[in-house]
Order: sequence, then structure tokens, then C-alpha cells
Amino acid sequence: MIKDKKMLVFSAHAADYVWRSGGTIAKYIENGADVTVIVMTFGVRGESNGIWKKGNQTYESVKEVRKKETAAAAEALGVKNIEYWDLVDYPINIDQDLEDRVLHTIRKYQPDIIITHDKNDILNPDHNAIHELVWRSSILSNSDGVITEGMPTTKQMKIFGFEPHQTEISGFVPNQFIDITSAYDKKVAAMNCFEGQHHLIEYYKQRAFLRGNHARRLSGNKEYKYAESFASFYPVVSEELV
Amino acid sequence: MIKDKKMLVFSAHAADYVWRSGGTIAKYIENGADVTVIVMTFGVRGESNGIWKKGNQTYESVKEVRKKETAAAAEALGVKNIEYWDLVDYPINIDQDLEDRVLHTIRKYQPDIIITHDKNDILNPDHNAIHELVWRSSILSNSDGVITEGMPTTKQMKIFGFEPHQTEISGFVPNQFIDITSAYDKKVAAMNCFEGQHHLIEYYKQRAFLRGNHARRLSGNKEYKYAESFASFYPVVSEELV
Amino acid sequence: MIKDKKMLVFSAHAADYVWRSGGTIAKYIENGADVTVIVMTFGVRGESNGIWKKGNQTYESVKEVRKKETAAAAEALGVKNIEYWDLVDYPINIDQDLEDRVLHTIRKYQPDIIITHDKNDILNPDHNAIHELVWRSSILSNSDGVITEGMPTTKQMKIFGFEPHQTEISGFVPNQFIDITSAYDKKVAAMNCFEGQHHLIEYYKQRAFLRGNHARRLSGNKEYKYAESFASFYPVVSEELV
Amino acid sequence: MIKDKKMLVFSAHAADYVWRSGGTIAKYIENGADVTVIVMTFGVRGESNGIWKKGNQTYESVKEVRKKETAAAAEALGVKNIEYWDLVDYPINIDQDLEDRVLHTIRKYQPDIIITHDKNDILNPDHNAIHELVWRSSILSNSDGVITEGMPTTKQMKIFGFEPHQTEISGFVPNQFIDITSAYDKKVAAMNCFEGQHHLIEYYKQRAFLRGNHARRLSGNKEYKYAESFASFYPVVSEELV
Amino acid sequence: MIKDKKMLVFSAHAADYVWRSGGTIAKYIENGADVTVIVMTFGVRGESNGIWKKGNQTYESVKEVRKKETAAAAEALGVKNIEYWDLVDYPINIDQDLEDRVLHTIRKYQPDIIITHDKNDILNPDHNAIHELVWRSSILSNSDGVITEGMPTTKQMKIFGFEPHQTEISGFVPNQFIDITSAYDKKVAAMNCFEGQHHLIEYYKQRAFLRGNHARRLSGNKEYKYAESFASFYPVVSEELV
Amino acid sequence: MIKDKKMLVFSAHAADYVWRSGGTIAKYIENGADVTVIVMTFGVRGESNGIWKKGNQTYESVKEVRKKETAAAAEALGVKNIEYWDLVDYPINIDQDLEDRVLHTIRKYQPDIIITHDKNDILNPDHNAIHELVWRSSILSNSDGVITEGMPTTKQMKIFGFEPHQTEISGFVPNQFIDITSAYDKKVAAMNCFEGQHHLIEYYKQRAFLRGNHARRLSGNKEYKYAESFASFYPVVSEELV
Repeated sequence: MIKDKKMLVFSAHAADYVWRSGGTIAKYIENGADVTVIVMTFGVRGESNGIWKKGNQTYESVKEVRKKETAAAAEALGVKNIEYWDLVDYPINIDQDLEDRVLHTIRKYQPDIIITHDKNDILNPDHNAIHELVWRSSILSNSDGVITEGMPTTKQMKIFGFEPHQTEISGFVPNQFIDITSAYDKKVAAMNCFEGQHHLIEYYKQRAFLRGNHARRLSGNKEYKYAESFASFYPVVSEELV
Repeated sequence: MIKDKKMLVFSAHAADYVWRSGGTIAKYIENGADVTVIVMTFGVRGESNGIWKKGNQTYESVKEVRKKETAAAAEALGVKNIEYWDLVDYPINIDQDLEDRVLHTIRKYQPDIIITHDKNDILNPDHNAIHELVWRSSILSNSDGVITEGMPTTKQMKIFGFEPHQTEISGFVPNQFIDITSAYDKKVAAMNCFEGQHHLIEYYKQRAFLRGNHARRLSGNKEYKYAESFASFYPVVSEELV
Repeated sequence: MIKDKKMLVFSAHAADYVWRSGGTIAKYIENGADVTVIVMTFGVRGESNGIWKKGNQTYESVKEVRKKETAAAAEALGVKNIEYWDLVDYPINIDQDLEDRVLHTIRKYQPDIIITHDKNDILNPDHNAIHELVWRSSILSNSDGVITEGMPTTKQMKIFGFEPHQTEISGFVPNQFIDITSAYDKKVAAMNCFEGQHHLIEYYKQRAFLRGNHARRLSGNKEYKYAESFASFYPVVSEELV
Repeated sequence: MIKDKKMLVFSAHAADYVWRSGGTIAKYIENGADVTVIVMTFGVRGESNGIWKKGNQTYESVKEVRKKETAAAAEALGVKNIEYWDLVDYPINIDQDLEDRVLHTIRKYQPDIIITHDKNDILNPDHNAIHELVWRSSILSNSDGVITEGMPTTKQMKIFGFEPHQTEISGFVPNQFIDITSAYDKKVAAMNCFEGQHHLIEYYKQRAFLRGNHARRLSGNKEYKYAESFASFYPVVSEELV
Repeated sequence: MIKDKKMLVFSAHAADYVWRSGGTIAKYIENGADVTVIVMTFGVRGESNGIWKKGNQTYESVKEVRKKETAAAAEALGVKNIEYWDLVDYPINIDQDLEDRVLHTIRKYQPDIIITHDKNDILNPDHNAIHELVWRSSILSNSDGVITEGMPTTKQMKIFGFEPHQTEISGFVPNQFIDITSAYDKKVAAMNCFEGQHHLIEYYKQRAFLRGNHARRLSGNKEYKYAESFASFYPVVSEELV
Repeated sequence: MIKDKKMLVFSAHAADYVWRSGGTIAKYIENGADVTVIVMTFGVRGESNGIWKKGNQTYESVKEVRKKETAAAAEALGVKNIEYWDLVDYPINIDQDLEDRVLHTIRKYQPDIIITHDKNDILNPDHNAIHELVWRSSILSNSDGVITEGMPTTKQMKIFGFEPHQTEISGFVPNQFIDITSAYDKKVAAMNCFEGQHHLIEYYKQRAFLRGNHARRLSGNKEYKYAESFASFYPVVSEELV
């Protein structure tokens, strides 16, 4: 049941969690799940071309825009728990402090589900680095001998990679489709908050439509209009075939 | 819920469904599912070395042994619906009659779930041929323009490949593990019916133990002692991440 | 130069060439290329669910609809040369006559470029069979010792697979994107001819939009609004890196 | 020890066994192995372009040339046991008679080692068909229930695929390199027998040189000047790591 | 011949070399090989859950237990040469000192064979890091221009990856099976030394049994009861096909 | 048109650009392109075995030889723009300075085409590190928010990986072949400058011959005698199928 689940989302940049999993996040929240989003960077250097192109910008001015946009988007999705880590992107520097921070965050929230970047995005080195980091930290988090004061070991959680922008050439193969029909309007509202990436709004609306078509075809369920797809890091373990 | 499910199993030879999915079959039956097993051949030529080695055998004499064995195994699993097609194996001849028969069988039973051989078994050409045949027939079965008198079009069902004997060199990658702890004794009882393949009984007992270890590790559920693994042909489509 | 090219398209069913390469076909024709389309089947059994669902249909009645639709679509694309082979689909029976016919057709048209189905469509066995058939025939066609009265050996042509419906789970990886912006309206007009597959029209409009986004991103060319993607069977051989 | 080995080579066309494994064959023979070569077709249609291009040829006239060439090549390699099956190529028709013949041949010779085409040659459908056929037959041959009058079941033999012409695009990955330095001159002499494929002689001389370079680099053995490479169908099973 | 070989084993944690290659190590030693084991960490943080769960443990107390266990296991296998590097695990920090140490160790021992972790373990980031490190160091070690005072350049050695815990989902494909029947009792004795990982003892006993079954099937040698499998990093280069 | 192109080549060691792309470089220059070569290291530690083996060498003495050789080779190819970064190799240390330097170099030259190492060379860790570095830097270079004083953002350029020494076992799959017949003599002249790697000269002459054979076969163009092959990082985006 969704309502009993704790979900933790690691988003490399300010908008990744919206394009790639905004519908799933909104759906989980509207069904009572406890969702936390970690916005690791505001994507000032790597994902703000639209703002920079307006001219007369500084790192700080772009950051202000992006911060407002992502906060508005989170609100549109219904996200109550959000952390802004305000790291520099392009590239994200993976040092020991960040390793510790990700580990501590996983242990703090004790998630049933982690969502983050999948293992290869051929157009974005930050996404790949965060994938590795989150995966590695999840393994450490589950080990009793890795001691973090006051924060217990986690149990093996489910982990999912969301879609990169260009899937096939990144080797992305979806193995789970989630119906987001009920939450689609919230996703659209959230996407509309990112003025600097206007071309992506239409792109991800159409992608949700295509994934909805796939989900209908594979399930036979005509009610599925919009969907998001994910790549589970591990096999499904279950009481019955799903 | 398992109890509402109709499952159809295509087994190339007399014992495949037992080694590879006997626990899942028994579990589904004990939970109220409607399971039908199609034993396509008795494996007289390809999987009866133990009997032939005793000497003084004919095709018919071996078949009698195998038929008794598989009937006993099916009973041990609780299988009520079983068809013996009595085709010749090694190789199984895939002609139009067989194509039609598989199609008609799928439409007759209207399964929610089909289980059969996965796409590559590097040590068994029959398994590969049956995989292709069942997959192809399932597609045809779902198409309204393929008309079979008195038998309606099916909806897209779930389809799963079970494990080949040597997995890694066959390219088998499990993406679903099913806990069979409650049904494990039935699986062992069913396997014990195959006298001619004694070495395989111990093999598949140990494999169930290993898969149980994998399932525990990946799920964190300590109750999983024995498991079977499958490769879903298609992605999971679902209301929530699993 | 497009205008000097002869292109031959093998389409398993009545609409495949439109969804998957209609823009490229229209563009080639409007630039003076010599394009021939082979519609191998009308897709009566496999790709006419929308018509069958209306009720009161026969094989012949559905065929009439599909024939009119594909003829109208071809006209919308500007296709002058089209052959309707009127084979039965789902499955397409690959016999010696068909092998010969494909070989003879290749030799008759002496194409510079062949477009057909890519090697794997996990939801359509006909597509896979036609891929194999066309590839095999192209090899034979290039060999001097395979003699076809009055029709000379071909030179190695370029061969491309077009997109299956669900790309990632079919293992499709595009390696060439073709800008179809100038021909997009013709593609839409052609797609609109297929009443029985209404849901696919929107699907392939959106796919052209997504592929256009990919093409812009990978090339830096802002003029590319719509695109189609293909998987070349062989490496590019060229005077310069492309 | 090579001298105790029985090797059986299935060559789709008249020259395949020479280009792809001639050095290994000659080496095995000079070290006392018992080698049999099956020339399944003379490659009249598929691999005799050089002869057809001379003009004034018929199927029979080309066949005579090819037969003389391959017989001379076999002699140059030291091959005493050779069967010419004289099938038509491009395509080779795989019917029940041929299935039986391959099975019976394997059982007749009881080989320790089979060499044939690897699983994918993107430029030659015959090679792929023969790969499948020989692999399938080898499995049947090892099964006690597949009864062939007067010819006993075989034990699992080693099976190797030799190199296709263009390796990387055919997915060929060598996993065994055999030093052929001592037998290299015989291979060259054998290749020189094929007048109709002159361009290939230089090609395969250079390939043996490159493979020799690879073998030296991977083994540290400076004595390896020329080599051939193969893809074993199955893992090595051994008393020690090799 | 095993007796002339020098083998060097890099084990990320205290027990890896036992579970994954203990039988091969014991066999090599009983046949006269010169084997050295490098225990890089005691696995205090990553592979000692069983001990931590007892409660009242510190890093030092757990390390003492692990050190005794691995020393006892090494003795059970007959290992005389063992180095305990006592690094911290989970994660192992790969710095320049460690790079140098691995390089120097390879040059000091001049191994014919290196065994270490294979390239991907989807459940253990340390294993992947050590794989990369050992591979990289082996390349440097073979280069004359990489100068290490008093320690000569090595010749290209053979390198093998041993099995991760869950093979298929880690992409592990064995290409060499080693019969360990004669050394199996020593492996069991060595495994029994690890009290904190009791569940793994049964697991790796059963795995050896399954690998024995595979080795028998692939070789036809009925004497093989237990085996271990490895993935050679490079192709076999040999005087004859193996 | 080649003459309008700016090409930037990143070569890990002193000779890589010559063996792997010397013909393409010479061809581009003779057709008027603007080509710059970055020789990142002189390969003193990793690719100068031939010189070290002569004895009595120091890092500096070997470097002098290599520097002269690569300068002579560049001249033979017609290269006017060349930078010697004189980094230490085996391993190349990838620090922030080097990251910045590669980024700045890309922005300084604003290339249409980048050529560098492909993603995997199983025998050379430096090649893999440089691949990652150049790819990562190219992404950053194209992003407006990554600001480098006085150097504008680049547009997405084409990027190609050249061949590793042993292709198949490194997973290299060529997807573009470039005819270098007109520039072949210059490539040979350039290769002849490397006295310390004499065995490689013959190797890469023969490889150019083999690639020429492949290029002829795949294109049907008989004029192609010598070729080089590359793996494009991204799909071709084009106005027509190539």
C-alpha cells in the first residue's frame, strides 16, 4: 500500500525530480505516502541555459530563479519535505563530506523506496555520478558495521532509476511503469514552474503520453492515460508474479 | 491476489515445469489459483538418459515411465488440470498444427499469467523453440483479427520465462523472485517422482535454497527460505513501485 | 544527394511505413528521389483491431478498408510506386515463393537504400520475420552466383531498420536521425488516413516531436523540429566523419 | 595432447575452413590429430564472385573450379579425411535430411572437438544457419534417447566458432587464440589454391599476423608469430586455470 | 602444471578468497603451487553483520574476531603466505599509497596468475573498486617504463575474477570451471571458521555442488563433484583448443 | 565539406593519434581542415618499452626521444597545430587542473569534431580515463552556465572514439569507416618515426588494409584501399540517410 511507504528522492539538479518522477511523487503523496525530496544542486551551471541566455546573470541571480522555481514545483506536487543542498553542479564534486551526507540522509529517513538517476545518461555526467553515489551509500547504509551515531542501519530498500533525457542511446531499459493519470495535472503544474526550460515542458508532457500508451498496451488496462517509467536496480521479490 | 488468477504453463518436456516452477505452481494452487499445465512432450528422447541407460528400453517403454512420473509429480503439486500432448522431442517439430494448438490453448484458458521457457537455453534447443512459439502465439492470441471459432481474443497477459539449467551462460537474468517456502515440501515431493533424473533433484533443491538466500537479501524479508526466479518478458505495469 | 537515390521500403503491414518512416519517405520524394513502397500485407489480422471491434466484419471487408487507407496515405506522402502483395499476416508465412519475390524485387529496383523493420520488435513477430527475410535477401541479391534471369546483381546498398512501437524493451538503438520538418505535414496527413488506428496518430505525432528534440540536442541545429530515427544495419562508410 | 584428439570441422562453403581455421587444422594434423572436414557446399552461388565475373560460367563449371580448389587446399593442409556434400548454397536449405546427416556425421566421427561457424555473421546468412544446425545437432547427438542405428551417443565435445569476415559488427568476441606459427606456411599454401578469391588471401594473411600480435601480447610468449582465434561455445572446464 | 605456478590472490575482505576461490587455492597448494593471499581489509564494517548483531562490539573487537577467523581459514586451506593489510572497508579508500602498494606487491611476487574480484558486484562497491585497482595495477606492472626500485617488470600474467554473491544480476559470466573435488573438504573446513557468516557456509557449499554439476555436464567428466567458476579477464592463448 | 571543419584530437600518449587516426588527420589537413592535436603525455612510462629495453635510460632521456618522434610524425601528417602537455602517464592523474585545461582547450578551439579514445581499452587504463575526461568536458563546454572568462560556450560537436589495440575484447564496435587511401603514405611516413614501437608499424599498416577491405565490402566502392574506423559517441543527425 502506497500510504505506508517512505520514499526518498535524490535529484541531481533542481528540476530532475519533476520531469522524471513528478507524477509518481504526486501520486504517492496524494495516497498518503511520506515523501522527501533532496535537491542536491540548483543546476545553475548545467541546467539553466534558458536563464543565462537572457543575459546579465550571475551565479547567485540564476540560483535565486531556480530556487523559486523548484520550490513552486515541489508545492505543486504536494511535497512537504524538501532539502536544498545547494551544491555546485557541472560537475558535482563527490568528496567525503558528500558521501557522509548521503549516507546520513538515507539513515535519517529510513526509506522503503529510493528514487534517483539511472546508471547511464550519455548527455549528463552529474547524473551518472549521483547514481553511483546513491547506490554506494545505500549499500553502506544497510551494513551494521557502518556506524552513524544515533542513526540505525537501514533494511534493504527498493531503488529505482528514473529516465534520462535520451533513453535508448543511454542504455535505459524501463522495467516498471507507474500509472500517473490521477496525478498528471499536478505534474503539468509543477513543470510549468520552470520558465528557463520551457522546451522541456512539452517534451515531458508528450513523454508521459507515450509511456501511458506503453502501459496500456502492456497491461491491457484502458484507464492508464499517462505513465512514468523506471529501472529497478534489483529484481522484484514478491509473494506473487507481478 | 493469487486466488483470482488463471495460470497456464507450457512445459517442453515432462519435468521442466517441476524443476523450474513447481514451487510457484503449488503455491498458486494452494492459494486458490486456477492452474493448467501443458506437458508438450514426455522428454523421451531428450530428457530420459537415466532410463535409457538401464538398457532394454523402447520409445514406448520410456514414455510409460515418464508419463507415470509426471502424473505423480503433478499430483504432488496439486495440479488438477493437465494436458499431455505427447509430441516427439529432440527436436520438437514446430508445424502449423502445433502453432494452431498453442494459440487455441491460450484462447481456451484465457490466462492472466503464462509461464514457459525463457529465450535462451544454451544446452537445449527445444526450450528455445518453445519459447519462441509460445511468445508468438501469445501475440496472435491478443489480436482481434486472428479469429478462432468460439474462442475470444485474449487480453495482454503477463508472461514469464523460467530458469534454464545453466543460467549465466544462457544469458538468463532473473527479474522476479517468488517466495515458495510454504510450497517447498510439495516441490520436493514432486521432484522425487522422477527416478530417471535423480541427480537433478538434489540440484534443484539446492537451487531453491540459493534463490531463497537471494530473495532474503534483496527484500530484507527473513521469512523467505526457498524461492524460484523468473524473467518477465515485459516490464511490470503497476499502480505502485514494487 | 537525395535526388539521385533509389529507395525501397518493405512494410510488413499496411501502415508500418507511414508511422515509422513516412516523413523520410515524403522528404525523399519531395527532393526528387525514386521511392518504391512494398506493402506486404494489409495487416488485416494483426493491425486492424479498431476495425474489427466495430463488428460485422470479414477478412475481405477489413481488407477493403485497409487498402483504401494505405492507398490514401501513400498518396498523401507523394508515393507513386507502390506494390500491394496482399499476403496474410499474423503470421506472415515465409516460404520459398516469398523468398524469391523479395530477392527479385530488390534486384528489379536496384535500390541505393532499403528501409524495413529492425531486428527485434518484442510485440510483433511479423516485424522480426520480415527483418530477417529482407536482410537475407539483400545478401543474396549482392552475390553474382545467385542468378535471376534478366535481373543483374545489386551492389551493396545501405539498409536501415525503422523504430518498433516500444523501443527500449525491443533493444532498438537509433544511430541515425533524419530531420523531417519540411515533410511533417505530409506525414500527419498520411497518418490521418488510418481511422482504425486512431490512438496511434497522436502517438507518432508526439514521437516525431521527441525525435526532433533529440536531433536538435545532438546536432545543435535549431531548425530541426520533427525527426525520425533509424538503426543502420551496417557502419557508415564515408569520405568524412558525419 | 593434440595427437589424441579427433576434430570435426563443418564448413558452410568451400573455403571457409581454410580462411578461418586452416592453420589450426594443419597444426592438429602435423601433431597427429585425427581431423575430418565436411565441405557442405562448394559456395557456387555465394562465394565464387571472382569466377562468375570471368563470364561464360554455369553452376556446374563454377563447381568444378571450386571443387578442385578446395581439394588442393585440403591437401596443402594435410587433410586426409574430407567429405564434399555438394549442397546448394545461398541459401543452404535446412531440411530434415540435412538435420539427420549432421547428427549422423557427428555420431560417426565421435569428435572431441567440433569447429564451425560462430553464432552471427552479419554478412552471411548461411554461416548463421550452419551454426544453429551444428549446435542443435551436437546437443541431440549427446542424448541417449536420440537413437541412430549402429552409432552410439557421443559425450559432450568442445565446440568452437571461427571468425566471421567482419568481426566487431558481427558481435564476434574471441576467447581462445591458437598459435599457428609452425603451420602458417601450410595455411598460406592452402589459401593460394583459391584463385577466385584472391583479395581474401592477403586479407587472411594479415589477419593471422594481427592475431599473432594479440596472442603475444596476451600471453607474453614471443614465439607466437601467427595465430587464429575462436569463440568457444561453452566455458572451459579444466583441472587448472588456463 | 600447477606445481610451477605462482598465484597471487587479492581479497577485498577477510572471507572473500575463501567463499569464492578457497577450493582452487587449496588445490593449487596441495599440488605444489606457490600461493600468496592478500587480505586487504578484515571486512569489519561491511561483512561482519553477524558479529555486530551480537552487541557490545567495537571496531577493534570485531577486527580481532575476523582476524582469527581468516587466519584459521587460511591455515585450513594450507596457505602459508598471507598478508593482512588491515585497511578500512565500506568503503575502501583508493589512494596513491594503495595504488603503489598493489603495484609493488604484484612486482614482488611476480605471479603467473592473479585472482581477484570480477568487474561488477551489484551488491558490493568495494569489490568493484578492488577489481579496477588490481586490473589497473597489473597493466602498469607489465610496463618497463613504470620503475619500482629493485623490482623488475612483470610479464603479462593471467587474471581471473571470482564469483560475486548474486551472479546473474551482477552480469557475471563464468568462462572457466575448476574442479575442486580433491580440495573440497579443505574449503568446507576453511568456511567453517567464519562464525559470523554462518548462513554463507551452507550457501557456498551448495554453490560448489551446483558448479560441480555444471562442470560435469560441460566436460562429460563424471569425476567432477565440486567446482568453482571464474571469469578470465582475457582470452585463453594456447597451443591447443581447451 | 572537410575544408570548413575544425578538428581537435586528444591523444593520451605520444603515438596514439598516429596509429589510430593518422590517416584521417592527414586527409582532413590535405583537404583544408583546421586540425589541432593535443599530445597529453609522451608515453614515457606506458608506451616506450622499446626504448627502455635498450638500457641506460632515464625518464628525461626517453622523453626526449619520444618528443622528437612525435614531432616528426606530426610533421609527416601535415599537422601544424600541436600542443605537448607533457603530463606523466601510467597513470595519468586526473585532477581539477587537468579538468579545467581540457575544458578550456575545447572552448579555445571550438571544434566541429573531437577525436579521442573510445570508452574501453581492456589493455590501457589511461585510454579509458582520457575518454571519460574528454567526454565529460565536452558536455560542460556546451553549457552556458559553465563560465570560462573570454571563451564562449561551444555548440554540440561530433565526438569519435578511435580504435583500441585489441578491438573485440575491448567491446569496440566501429560505426564509421573513413577512406584514407589518399593519405595512406603520410600515415606510413608518420608511423615510421616511432623507432621504439617498430612492431606496431606493421600492425597498423595491416589494420588499415583490413579496414580498407571492410570499407569496400560495406560500401561497394572499389576505390577504397585503406581505411580507419571510429565509434561515434552519438547517433548521426542528418538531412539524409548515410
